Amino acid sequence: MNVLVLGAGQLARMMALAGAPLNINISAYDVNTDNIIHPLTQAQLGSGLAQALAAADVVTAEFEHIPLPILEECQQSGKFLPGAAAIKAGGDRRLEKALLESAGAASAAYRIIRSEADFNQAIAELGLPLVFKSALAGYDGKGQWRLKTADDAKQIWQQIAAFLAADTKQAIVAEQFIRFEREVSLVGARSSSGEIKVYPLTENHHVNGVLSVSLARPVTQALQLHAEKMFTAVANHLNYVGVLAIEFFEVQGSLLVNEIAPRVHNSGHWTQQGADCCQFTNHLRAVCGLPLGSTALIRPTLMINILGEDVVPSSILTLPALGLHWYGKTKRAGRKMGHINLSANSNAELKALFAKLIDQLPASAFPELEQMLQRI
Amino acid sequence: MNVLVLGAGQLARMMALAGAPLNINISAYDVNTDNIIHPLTQAQLGSGLAQALAAADVVTAEFEHIPLPILEECQQSGKFLPGAAAIKAGGDRRLEKALLESAGAASAAYRIIRSEADFNQAIAELGLPLVFKSALAGYDGKGQWRLKTADDAKQIWQQIAAFLAADTKQAIVAEQFIRFEREVSLVGARSSSGEIKVYPLTENHHVNGVLSVSLARPVTQALQLHAEKMFTAVANHLNYVGVLAIEFFEVQGSLLVNEIAPRVHNSGHWTQQGADCCQFTNHLRAVCGLPLGSTALIRPTLMINILGEDVVPSSILTLPALGLHWYGKTKRAGRKMGHINLSANSNAELKALFAKLIDQLPASAFPELEQMLQRI
Repeated sequence: MNVLVLGAGQLARMMALAGAPLNINISAYDVNTDNIIHPLTQAQLGSGLAQALAAADVVTAEFEHIPLPILEECQQSGKFLPGAAAIKAGGDRRLEKALLESAGAASAAYRIIRSEADFNQAIAELGLPLVFKSALAGYDGKGQWRLKTADDAKQIWQQIAAFLAADTKQAIVAEQFIRFEREVSLVGARSSSGEIKVYPLTENHHVNGVLSVSLARPVTQALQLHAEKMFTAVANHLNYVGVLAIEFFEVQGSLLVNEIAPRVHNSGHWTQQGADCCQFTNHLRAVCGLPLGSTALIRPTLMINILGEDVVPSSILTLPALGLHWYGKTKRAGRKMGHINLSANSNAELKALFAKLIDQLPASAFPELEQMLQRI
Repeated sequence: MNVLVLGAGQLARMMALAGAPLNINISAYDVNTDNIIHPLTQAQLGSGLAQALAAADVVTAEFEHIPLPILEECQQSGKFLPGAAAIKAGGDRRLEKALLESAGAASAAYRIIRSEADFNQAIAELGLPLVFKSALAGYDGKGQWRLKTADDAKQIWQQIAAFLAADTKQAIVAEQFIRFEREVSLVGARSSSGEIKVYPLTENHHVNGVLSVSLARPVTQALQLHAEKMFTAVANHLNYVGVLAIEFFEVQGSLLVNEIAPRVHNSGHWTQQGADCCQFTNHLRAVCGLPLGSTALIRPTLMINILGEDVVPSSILTLPALGLHWYGKTKRAGRKMGHINLSANSNAELKALFAKLIDQLPASAFPELEQMLQRI
């Protein structure tokens, strides 16, 4: 089976590693260069989307910010899963919000902003504080503004107005600011037959808007079922096939959807080590028409992103059940270069191991891990 | 880090999959074709051993039946681990027997046979039954004869004589036949600093001399320590670096070495799913000078070889904690095409899952699994 992935980053690379044991060959189409490459070796296999599509049995994506003409061409191939509608919904906050409403999945109240009048109306109707997010291509905390007091409204509007003027395709989605206690995400898969399997809710800790640590451990059954219900509604609404991630805010024991990612997700990397069948394998099983694998937690596991560093002390490899995953990328400030998975037989043991790991990692490159340690 | 593997089969392929997350790039030198290939994509990267060695930081091997000139050239590169002596000992039963004697590791009494006089002397001194094994290139049950009664001696000698006449480099090692209760193996790693970590003893079940099922579960501490002591003696004697496998016969609670394999081993494939750090990762960590990973058992796990088949019912993928590993090979009768790993939280649960799996596998392609089921 030949699977083409739109995007040639670490997610395509990890799909290649997960696909090989299933005799699923992964090639990656780089939407920026028009090249077809092998995501592990980086060898160029060809160029052009037409050639890439012709050679593929199935087409999927590792990211959602894909030019529309490419999405259309993939959709027309009849091989694209989860398909253009799902990818678009993940890449445009307006569509995402409409999807969540249609599926009945709770999320923060919002307005779409194109003008100063819209901006002022949103403040009047939703109240402060508000978060303004770019509709397109905004992730990892980019293209976001917070408005806490009316005094700052003029200044924030000027920034937003400049942003909108620079790109006429853009819009802004204003959302009520949610005072959440935790950020959690649910990663799961839906098969072509409509079967759904979800991993346990993962607790996420962001630093400057970028995921730093994800923690998977046994969760409250009620919260898990609440998340699973929304996941099922969204996935069924999209007739989704593949792995889907939904990020939630936890507020007083309830969940509000923050955003969806129609793909394997950073907060699911722990499944490589902590779950029966990892998210990459399950995504490929789903899009290739194979049965889904078990999403059960084997043991408490956490994942730590390695950002902007291409080396970690090799002494960390002496910790038991530690998996180090580099992405083979060139070092750049803030870039996702790899991750560390750490498992243990109990929360207490995981906390002790995490503390040992933190001692060995340079604090400058791994800020705020101590904070996360306190939460385990 | 660039690691060259002598041999381009499934073990090199699985090293490539395990190496990628450590940013260790694997290329494979096919000793038959002189080609350098990528063991996952099969893309040709070059040709000739000199080129292959020049591009490598470390050289290792996935099999032991390697022409001596190639071993010598690798040894001279100063990059070869576990090194020519270990590979030779694994590929020549005479050297293997001498090694075991030197290291004080118990194995069946033996004689080296080059003539009919040697043959008759071995019978006189060791008694019957005897097993005659070719000194070179005999594995998976090939090049072996059993002599049970003196009546058959002439006939067996004629077969052996013809075998020796056809290849003047060959010799035969005669061994006392061991009436063993179980075949077990110990897979472990020794690092460049002399650190040793071994996985739990694995119970192996062969069909027609070829491994069919390996079973890893908590083992008797005394037996484990006994095996570990011999492993340590052999590995230290060779100043071994990398993963080493030792196959044992279990006889009345004691262990006799059957043979050693100076490499990752089929009976260690279960570690991909059942151990903290798998044998492929640990081999690469060892030869690349990194600390070894934990070899602890996570939960009972068994591995089933897929021989001569390139398809299995996809319904087996519905079983929890089942990993299917194909090697991307062309189908050929009896060929090792892939394997299945199956894990569970207890022996009883594993037995129940195994029974379900057996029900779904064609008995013609997977003979004798029922027998193994009775032993769990």
